[in-house]
Amino acid sequence: MNIVVTGAAGFLGKRLIKALLERGELRGQHGQRQRIEKISAFDVVPLAGIDDPRVQAISGDIADKAELERLIGPDIASVFHLAAIVSGQAEQDFDLGMRINFDATRALLERIRALGSGARFVMTSSVAVFGGTLPHTVEDSHVWAPQSSYGTEKALGDLLLADYSRRGFVDGRSLRMPTVVVRPGKPNRAASSFASGIIREPINGVEAVCPVAPQTPMWLISPGCAIDNLLHGHELLAAQLSGGRVINLPGLSVTVGEMLDSLRRIAGSEAANRVRFEPDPAIERIVNSWPGNFSADYARALGFVADTSFDDVVRAFIRDNAGAAL
Amino acid sequence: MNIVVTGAAGFLGKRLIKALLERGELRGQHGQRQRIEKISAFDVVPLAGIDDPRVQAISGDIADKAELERLIGPDIASVFHLAAIVSGQAEQDFDLGMRINFDATRALLERIRALGSGARFVMTSSVAVFGGTLPHTVEDSHVWAPQSSYGTEKALGDLLLADYSRRGFVDGRSLRMPTVVVRPGKPNRAASSFASGIIREPINGVEAVCPVAPQTPMWLISPGCAIDNLLHGHELLAAQLSGGRVINLPGLSVTVGEMLDSLRRIAGSEAANRVRFEPDPAIERIVNSWPGNFSADYARALGFVADTSFDDVVRAFIRDNAGAAL
Repeated sequence: MNIVVTGAAGFLGKRLIKALLERGELRGQHGQRQRIEKISAFDVVPLAGIDDPRVQAISGDIADKAELERLIGPDIASVFHLAAIVSGQAEQDFDLGMRINFDATRALLERIRALGSGARFVMTSSVAVFGGTLPHTVEDSHVWAPQSSYGTEKALGDLLLADYSRRGFVDGRSLRMPTVVVRPGKPNRAASSFASGIIREPINGVEAVCPVAPQTPMWLISPGCAIDNLLHGHELLAAQLSGGRVINLPGLSVTVGEMLDSLRRIAGSEAANRVRFEPDPAIERIVNSWPGNFSADYARALGFVADTSFDDVVRAFIRDNAGAAL
Repeated sequence: MNIVVTGAAGFLGKRLIKALLERGELRGQHGQRQRIEKISAFDVVPLAGIDDPRVQAISGDIADKAELERLIGPDIASVFHLAAIVSGQAEQDFDLGMRINFDATRALLERIRALGSGARFVMTSSVAVFGGTLPHTVEDSHVWAPQSSYGTEKALGDLLLADYSRRGFVDGRSLRMPTVVVRPGKPNRAASSFASGIIREPINGVEAVCPVAPQTPMWLISPGCAIDNLLHGHELLAAQLSGGRVINLPGLSVTVGEMLDSLRRIAGSEAANRVRFEPDPAIERIVNSWPGNFSADYARALGFVADTSFDDVVRAFIRDNAGAAL
């Protein structure tokens, strides 16, 4: 089977491609296991660090319809759509956010519809679709009320994916990701970027600024768990999705203070002392509009998984990034 | 002040224009009362039956950007956006529904954003955004899960209106209308068309077919109440809308059987006996996905109103349509 991954050069994209290559097979449209023959790895920036004859790296603009037509032909059985403009940037540049986070998603769905292939379409959505007055634990039945353009665009995509799936145009699954922590590499323009930074930077011997208060609750997922859930979301049969195509994933609910406690336990006080609190009202406004805990009952019933301890999340980051100085 | 009404030649559009003319004034951007100087009445079909120097009828395609630019200039203080493809037709013609119910709404919001006028934008949305497993009474905090393309398109518009308002591009208010009953005139392609037909046709001496079971709960609003709420939605100050820009209106919850009981009481057995039950699975599927009752707490707190008895709704129809044979 042939697969497309968008946002392939991103951190999750690369990890997903490696996981796909390692597995070597996925469920096809009728549930049967099929060998992965080709992965078209699409991104606006070149893909580096993956060398496998099954992977074809393609650079381009995801919102360009002609490029999408070349990318997705009738042979494509599955699309993992990870490409997105992150929350902070989408808030700063409304048109760019709409173009990439919504129009490109719509164009991908339309392309599959035009082909009539009914391809599987696994997309990452976000808890940023929630906002306003929220209960301590957000149920799957809770209304969406995004307080950012990023959250709005993700909710727009969710609605479209659900209707395209209901009509049989695609076989869609939208996975509402908790904040993925610990991301390696550099800070990005997501409002949640600090959540990785306050763990990653101190471990790497670098100072980090935390723009939100210690008691801020966060809803997190480790990179490994995120990839497991992306693959699981692909493998579910359409018949299992009786509760709809938009799925709030389970996660780990911890406060920023608890995250730093884990950092202190695992990496030591010297590392933990490298974090400095410096409130940033713009980031606080966005992050505080996100819920800190979810029931995620539907996802759990479908077999999606969550991390069980933030200590383990920190340990996994150290293990996965063995080059990092401790 | 200058106003635009889209869907102006429709039943609600015409009634709204008449109500605006009768009032003669509305609240402007800073809350002050202003005289209505001009109403640009836009529709794809010509407007008939309204003759007032303040009304300028314009026929055109709401999804045509050049026409929108001519229609909405910097002088337009308020837009009432009622134009829509009804649910049954949007389900049959997906592209048409997306084009009118979503792309045109987006183009209108974009036009106001480009002008920088921050115009007030009052839009009708629908309870068709709800679906799936629903409680007996739907709270404002209940998730949207449209089971039709019409409901999807209305939810897409709601999300966009909310974000455009949050960013200050427009001053939007989306009113989630219960099914408007009794509509005069001919049946349309809305899945809910029968709800007016089973009252209107028998009163006019014509047989009517009811495609859903007598115990089907309906969430209704009379035309008079709908117009009152549209005007009220316009008049609210932005500062009052702390619970968001998307508002589930209050309504009257009755079963189809209770509607026919009212018909029998008000118009007599001869009229009521003109209704024949003939299940239509396509319509039943859509109508049964809509909730039959809402708390509408936010709307009630904001002062929106509901009908209190279906007998009164039938009486109002007879009074408003005095030409109808009884």
